[in-house]
Amino acid sequence: MSSHTGERLQLTLFGESHGAAVGAVLCGLPAGEDIDTAALARFARRRAPGGDIATSPRNESDLAEILSGVYQGKATGAPLCAMIKNTDKRSNDYLATQDLARPSHADYTASVRYGGHSDPRGGGHFSARLTAPLVFAGGLAMQILERRGIYVRARLVSAGSARDTDLSFEPFPPDADAFNSVFSRIEQGGFPTLTEEGEERLRAEIESARMSLDSVGGVVECMIFGMPAGVGDPIYGGLENRFSRVIFGIPAVKGIEFGGGFACSAMRASQVNDEFFLQDGQVRTRTNYSGGIQGGISNGMPIVLRTAFKPTPSVHRSQNTVNLSTMQEQTLAIKGRHDPCVAVRAVPCVQAAAAFVALDSLLCAGKI
Amino acid sequence: MSSHTGERLQLTLFGESHGAAVGAVLCGLPAGEDIDTAALARFARRRAPGGDIATSPRNESDLAEILSGVYQGKATGAPLCAMIKNTDKRSNDYLATQDLARPSHADYTASVRYGGHSDPRGGGHFSARLTAPLVFAGGLAMQILERRGIYVRARLVSAGSARDTDLSFEPFPPDADAFNSVFSRIEQGGFPTLTEEGEERLRAEIESARMSLDSVGGVVECMIFGMPAGVGDPIYGGLENRFSRVIFGIPAVKGIEFGGGFACSAMRASQVNDEFFLQDGQVRTRTNYSGGIQGGISNGMPIVLRTAFKPTPSVHRSQNTVNLSTMQEQTLAIKGRHDPCVAVRAVPCVQAAAAFVALDSLLCAGKI
Amino acid sequence: MSSHTGERLQLTLFGESHGAAVGAVLCGLPAGEDIDTAALARFARRRAPGGDIATSPRNESDLAEILSGVYQGKATGAPLCAMIKNTDKRSNDYLATQDLARPSHADYTASVRYGGHSDPRGGGHFSARLTAPLVFAGGLAMQILERRGIYVRARLVSAGSARDTDLSFEPFPPDADAFNSVFSRIEQGGFPTLTEEGEERLRAEIESARMSLDSVGGVVECMIFGMPAGVGDPIYGGLENRFSRVIFGIPAVKGIEFGGGFACSAMRASQVNDEFFLQDGQVRTRTNYSGGIQGGISNGMPIVLRTAFKPTPSVHRSQNTVNLSTMQEQTLAIKGRHDPCVAVRAVPCVQAAAAFVALDSLLCAGKI
Amino acid sequence: MSSHTGERLQLTLFGESHGAAVGAVLCGLPAGEDIDTAALARFARRRAPGGDIATSPRNESDLAEILSGVYQGKATGAPLCAMIKNTDKRSNDYLATQDLARPSHADYTASVRYGGHSDPRGGGHFSARLTAPLVFAGGLAMQILERRGIYVRARLVSAGSARDTDLSFEPFPPDADAFNSVFSRIEQGGFPTLTEEGEERLRAEIESARMSLDSVGGVVECMIFGMPAGVGDPIYGGLENRFSRVIFGIPAVKGIEFGGGFACSAMRASQVNDEFFLQDGQVRTRTNYSGGIQGGISNGMPIVLRTAFKPTPSVHRSQNTVNLSTMQEQTLAIKGRHDPCVAVRAVPCVQAAAAFVALDSLLCAGKI
Repeated sequence: MSSHTGERLQLTLFGESHGAAVGAVLCGLPAGEDIDTAALARFARRRAPGGDIATSPRNESDLAEILSGVYQGKATGAPLCAMIKNTDKRSNDYLATQDLARPSHADYTASVRYGGHSDPRGGGHFSARLTAPLVFAGGLAMQILERRGIYVRARLVSAGSARDTDLSFEPFPPDADAFNSVFSRIEQGGFPTLTEEGEERLRAEIESARMSLDSVGGVVECMIFGMPAGVGDPIYGGLENRFSRVIFGIPAVKGIEFGGGFACSAMRASQVNDEFFLQDGQVRTRTNYSGGIQGGISNGMPIVLRTAFKPTPSVHRSQNTVNLSTMQEQTLAIKGRHDPCVAVRAVPCVQAAAAFVALDSLLCAGKI
Repeated sequence: MSSHTGERLQLTLFGESHGAAVGAVLCGLPAGEDIDTAALARFARRRAPGGDIATSPRNESDLAEILSGVYQGKATGAPLCAMIKNTDKRSNDYLATQDLARPSHADYTASVRYGGHSDPRGGGHFSARLTAPLVFAGGLAMQILERRGIYVRARLVSAGSARDTDLSFEPFPPDADAFNSVFSRIEQGGFPTLTEEGEERLRAEIESARMSLDSVGGVVECMIFGMPAGVGDPIYGGLENRFSRVIFGIPAVKGIEFGGGFACSAMRASQVNDEFFLQDGQVRTRTNYSGGIQGGISNGMPIVLRTAFKPTPSVHRSQNTVNLSTMQEQTLAIKGRHDPCVAVRAVPCVQAAAAFVALDSLLCAGKI
Repeated sequence: MSSHTGERLQLTLFGESHGAAVGAVLCGLPAGEDIDTAALARFARRRAPGGDIATSPRNESDLAEILSGVYQGKATGAPLCAMIKNTDKRSNDYLATQDLARPSHADYTASVRYGGHSDPRGGGHFSARLTAPLVFAGGLAMQILERRGIYVRARLVSAGSARDTDLSFEPFPPDADAFNSVFSRIEQGGFPTLTEEGEERLRAEIESARMSLDSVGGVVECMIFGMPAGVGDPIYGGLENRFSRVIFGIPAVKGIEFGGGFACSAMRASQVNDEFFLQDGQVRTRTNYSGGIQGGISNGMPIVLRTAFKPTPSVHRSQNTVNLSTMQEQTLAIKGRHDPCVAVRAVPCVQAAAAFVALDSLLCAGKI
Repeated sequence: MSSHTGERLQLTLFGESHGAAVGAVLCGLPAGEDIDTAALARFARRRAPGGDIATSPRNESDLAEILSGVYQGKATGAPLCAMIKNTDKRSNDYLATQDLARPSHADYTASVRYGGHSDPRGGGHFSARLTAPLVFAGGLAMQILERRGIYVRARLVSAGSARDTDLSFEPFPPDADAFNSVFSRIEQGGFPTLTEEGEERLRAEIESARMSLDSVGGVVECMIFGMPAGVGDPIYGGLENRFSRVIFGIPAVKGIEFGGGFACSAMRASQVNDEFFLQDGQVRTRTNYSGGIQGGISNGMPIVLRTAFKPTPSVHRSQNTVNLSTMQEQTLAIKGRHDPCVAVRAVPCVQAAAAFVALDSLLCAGKI
């Protein structure tokens, strides 16, 4: 429920945008796993704002302090609590307008849900700041998965109407190196498109929105290579169920699809059925419209999912809204520092969420 | 996990396509609710095959036998077990080819997951037959919701490239009657499009696929009218998380989106932000790109979600596959009775799943 | 919560004493396990009433009908639903007095909890009849455990002030045969004491209570031999937590203790600390005041727990109570057929509950 | 699982005895509740060691730092994380003997469970230090309950063979004041017996053990006054199940009983059945052998439970054990600072655990 998810690996998020700290408690980590804090810091920087015109200029250090669950550099198996202090808080940006429900934000619904007691500063617990501990948890999951040859990668497919290069893994990518090389540019901290051309197109679109005091949505694609067949459970324990219940925990996600996704609904079985064949004695499929999942269970092909992000609702234009204190209609011009395309920094968040689910599912399946 | 879902209202599904029975156990029903079995039977008929060229000719009685949890026609509050016997089983259709993994079905993944012990007849526990007890559970939830002015309705938006009439509830539908009248044709058991014209277009598309020994996908849209604001929880307890973890339990679902969904990702905040205004002292939004959900919590506007169904993978054409027993490549021509468009009968399934989630979420919020 | 328990192996109970059926859904059974229905029927007979003066003359067939989850005699891994029809119902025994809250029964609390809608006949869902599906589930768990050399046994230690022979496994029982031979009399369906002398003493006590239109309490002891070290989790996942949350689901249980239990509270560490030593290279303890559990985790010694049962609250004597319909004080003489010592038939119930928990915990620990 | 418990109110504990911090995340707190940190600090002092000869001289500040979930002194409804730093760590006391499994401690089982990776210093995550965040969480629950007239109190009934004064609430305590006055001595920070005479007897027993380089066990009794009828659920959701699954999370607990408990097992129904009567129009029972719980559900009488604590296993006497690194038998004389009777400081821990469960159960029942 609420800020808690997972089955064998469990994640609890806490904190508010402008409170003392945000953080995560991870229960169920396999004991003995090395914790590479340098790699965690590098991954966290991909989510942290600042330093890129396409993201918010807010200067947050996402440096996580590990309070428990690690001894001599290894996971003990006990709950790991990581705390990330909030340092660059500018609450005054919010206090002046805290009674004005920001359109398409959670201000109004949170106010109803919590009887007016939720922390109003910067969205409180509903803030995208809560993806910082998610990225910590997912980064840790990625380390554990990579030691077993399982790689979780993500990229920005589109921002507004601009699109990155198409990518298709048909037939099956020959090996992990081939898979990883496609994403190396992104993993090294570059703009999260596969190509420079894609970067140019998407940056232009985002910049255009920013100049119009507006924002654009985007689509993030995530792939997992090396997932063994047989992971997942039928019906409500399916991998799609598991990925979506965690990924919808990232703010601004409005849709998710697997493999062929919505496009499949316009097609015929003869076009999208994934025929089986044998490759080196392994059962493979010629195509991957299933996105690596059949009946909720992995089939050994790459897991493929795409997530739709709406435009950042915080824009500097004037908007009509309601003052929840006076119950009067009013206009609002949001101040503060906001991403013109929230999907850019969402790429490592989706990656983190997917890695968390993949590790949890492998633990459930007894494969780790 | 697996065949169990829900928080305050919990659903466990059991059964196999060709076993003795399928069924559901519902825990957490509010005590004292009338159980209208006639209405349940009518709703079940909308899912049951037979009688329509667009669906499978398999003649299943979906008549549920209630084993517990009801006394003198009312829910006691104790677990309600409903059993639906499997009567029209033709297992021989399956036994001859039971070692051949049907493309884009769960045969291969189930075989890996359960070490070859899963019931191979008609997909076993992975069969769409398991939506019969879901429809029972959801039908019951719908009764309880309707007594409180909350209506869950669904329709087929598209099948292949054919589309039903567009529907938009902007501004806010004035009342429940206006909302319900839009769906009355479907609720009375007609083809699940809003209009006759839509029906004609979609039937033509489906019939064309059937004549080609093929099948088509489709999109099901579901709306909930009357959901009060303040239902749902932040992050992993959000309504999108809850709907998707249950809806992906319906076979053949490959995607889900809320409100503006994937379309939002190509748009700007100035186009899709839902501005607030006051209507009769109530906070409303002018548009509903949020699909009634902000920060995971309902805002009082209609909940809107769409689900992508892939084409029924069972088609009569010859397909390439692998024999899991001999580990040889082989061709397969699937026999048996199959829907040329699984999305048609999926309409009440999505409706049922959504009603289950809505009721569970209202119970979690203490609103029922 | 409520009628659902377990983590990797999950059990949902349904049914009422005088409804159509009681039953269980078991999710998470390891696929491929043989289901020995004859052994299940033998074990069920140990719980079923009738045929022994020390138990109720109600003639219930506890024959379970398996509706799902089994194919060709083996568990498929899908949910297994077992239904036990209620045949020998004499509801009229209850209807005349259904508004009179039976002292120390759940009638009053159920009425408050469910707003008067719970099934009043024979305790409804609160009836000890619900231990029939528990015994089915636990009997199945016992089969799976025994294939791995893990044996769950139980016996009646005392009834009222009469006691069975003392039993102590210090030092460590040399092998499974030695352990099992102690319980063989009980497993073959005899009165559940270790010795004939114990049986005579306990029967006399029970008969004396019955002749006085009264009932007596008793203590059931359960031991598990062969549990490997390392099963269980810290704090809330401890084995004591797991056993107690399931065992308190058996009606009339008022206490539970592990190893030295309450007696330890009057002793000193020098008396009850279990010193470690090596036996054939294995770490063992000289004594077993820990009951095989330290820090919530098994240490490889036999698990030992004892459960206190209160006297059957249904007695034929006249008792003072309140009529919940008229809200008047009234006297009640309970009719119907009742056990003079509920602890006798509770022996296989405790055994079943313990076996369920042991199997679930082994699955959680990845040991099965 | 593991360090996580609760249903509507959820508690996750983290930390190790000698790590950076211990702490708790509480999810599901009712929004708007005042957080009285001074009262929390006072309650924490009752658990903290130091200052009393009957407890360990370790000087721990249990001062909790609230990182999230509180805004302007009130609970926001978002997860509340409280961190308690470990300041007075003397890890060297442990490192010299860290390979020697302390008898009746979790060292050996933790080592098996976590493959040798658990933090060995002072028991790591298995340490009684983890009751500090439990006491924080329970203290908070107590505040919320007291605002609604529900009081959770506890006391030490016995230490070794010494006993405090007997206490019986038959008939029903007339009001909250009468109930609270019995415990006022304890609540003000005194030794946790009801009387001075009890204190003298128990202190003598504990001191005698300490002088013998030994320790004694004890029994803690907890009562809840003001719990409304109708809280709890049947079978696995019963209050006994809920209390025991949390209370067994306190180290050294070996047994739990409710109301008449084990004593009932030696008695007859005519002695222990709680007859109903009417008092001011309310249904009451003349006696309370049920401990306020029937069928798992509260009946409006005081909840009564007792918990058996074994003697602190850390004693300064030499003990036989095994070196887990060399796998040799060896003797061990435990150094460090240890309580001669762990049950003394366990009193507020049981109280906290019970308050947590009571609040969670009330939230589940929709009564708060």
